[in-house]
Amino acid sequence: MKKLYVVGTGPGTETMITPEVEHAIAASSDLVAYGLYLDLLGTRLDGKTRHDRPLGEEIERARLALELAAKGNTTALISSGDIGIFAMATLVFELLERKQHGDEEGHGWDEVEIEVMPGISAMQLAAARMGAALGHDFCAISLSDLLTPWETIETRIRAAALGDFVVSFYNPVSKKRDWQLARAREILLERRPAQTPVILGRNLGRDDETVRLTTLGELRVEDVDMLTLVQVGSSATRAFNDGKRDWVYTPRGYARKLTLGDDT
Amino acid sequence: MKKLYVVGTGPGTETMITPEVEHAIAASSDLVAYGLYLDLLGTRLDGKTRHDRPLGEEIERARLALELAAKGNTTALISSGDIGIFAMATLVFELLERKQHGDEEGHGWDEVEIEVMPGISAMQLAAARMGAALGHDFCAISLSDLLTPWETIETRIRAAALGDFVVSFYNPVSKKRDWQLARAREILLERRPAQTPVILGRNLGRDDETVRLTTLGELRVEDVDMLTLVQVGSSATRAFNDGKRDWVYTPRGYARKLTLGDDT
Repeated sequence: MKKLYVVGTGPGTETMITPEVEHAIAASSDLVAYGLYLDLLGTRLDGKTRHDRPLGEEIERARLALELAAKGNTTALISSGDIGIFAMATLVFELLERKQHGDEEGHGWDEVEIEVMPGISAMQLAAARMGAALGHDFCAISLSDLLTPWETIETRIRAAALGDFVVSFYNPVSKKRDWQLARAREILLERRPAQTPVILGRNLGRDDETVRLTTLGELRVEDVDMLTLVQVGSSATRAFNDGKRDWVYTPRGYARKLTLGDDT
Repeated sequence: MKKLYVVGTGPGTETMITPEVEHAIAASSDLVAYGLYLDLLGTRLDGKTRHDRPLGEEIERARLALELAAKGNTTALISSGDIGIFAMATLVFELLERKQHGDEEGHGWDEVEIEVMPGISAMQLAAARMGAALGHDFCAISLSDLLTPWETIETRIRAAALGDFVVSFYNPVSKKRDWQLARAREILLERRPAQTPVILGRNLGRDDETVRLTTLGELRVEDVDMLTLVQVGSSATRAFNDGKRDWVYTPRGYARKLTLGDDT
């Protein structure tokens, strides 16, 4: 059976790779990923063929993984975090569907068995480092308007504000995008207090990890870069200091009733 | 150093426990969890003291874990999935904050070092089993109105509909709750098509796992029980058959512009 594993290795290096992902990588002869992720795999690369493609060539990376597997090479397409969350897995299925419609040649792709394996995503580790911010209803929004119109993203942020969700922002800024996070902050501030806790998790799970607590009122775009996960509490999220350190958590339930109001 | 590990073991049994969680359990003398979760740990229980508390006694379980750790027993408070997502972690911090306010005695709690470790959550595995439904913006909503007023939950569902998020429903039904999921379906149907893909993942990661694809129009509450994760696609989520099986994915971005409209 020709096989393609589509796997996430979690944040950081080693401590959060699930056993099934570890086995999938070990069983593969070919590993396809962004170079930095491959470097993090260390000795797992030994004896395997490494297919490194730069950022920006995501669709080519997914196609290469399918092609290698179709040739009979057991292949792992790898990303850090959860490959199913704002990452490469969806591209594999986009390509597969294009093949069904005749828009991809996809020679031999139908003989490949595909298995997707989740990994720990950045929002989960950001919450864990500071306590339990994802203890109640939450959402995740990518602020990248490369493929999604900004109007759609802004509507989602507005909906997140209306629903009083804890919000994790992926891709909050990039070299070319610097104003989206400020606009998101502005929208959320219309509906939740300035003292709402905000977690800034940078390089989560890596040696140079930093996790900072701030507030929605104090959040500055300059404190955030493309390696940062921004997690904004709901109106119920609480921050406190236990005498040694700060913690943030969102209680299981609460009495406040939400209404969508007339200003939407 | 007195230590309390607050850890999630992922769905199912063994294949998704991260190495850091494995180490935390191995390092603990006392394990606190709902009995069923402890049973899943098998030989990891050998030589350890098992503290089994029934469902419904969540706050007592969290307090017991803090008390055991404060006595000097290295303790792991364990849940399946991600203990930070709709699970026990938040209760530990609720108790710690109550102690700060003098509402818990909490003898010795301030000497306990707490470490939270995430696990794979059911929504991640549901998506992975069927492809990549969480490939773009999503939210997670608990339909349990035990601690949250139904009006708040309904507002959240309405906000999820407005924002066109992929929605994962946790606690969709229980023995005592049978109408909430039907109401949620009704609200989402106002804003997304009847053919929207819906994934029903039951007993995810366990031997008797079943994963079914249906649509929002065809979704029947009778097909769902308290062990089921219900994942509803956004208007962009696609289902297709590659000749061998069905897949579901949500593309990275899309051209449709959302507006909140006047009917909110």
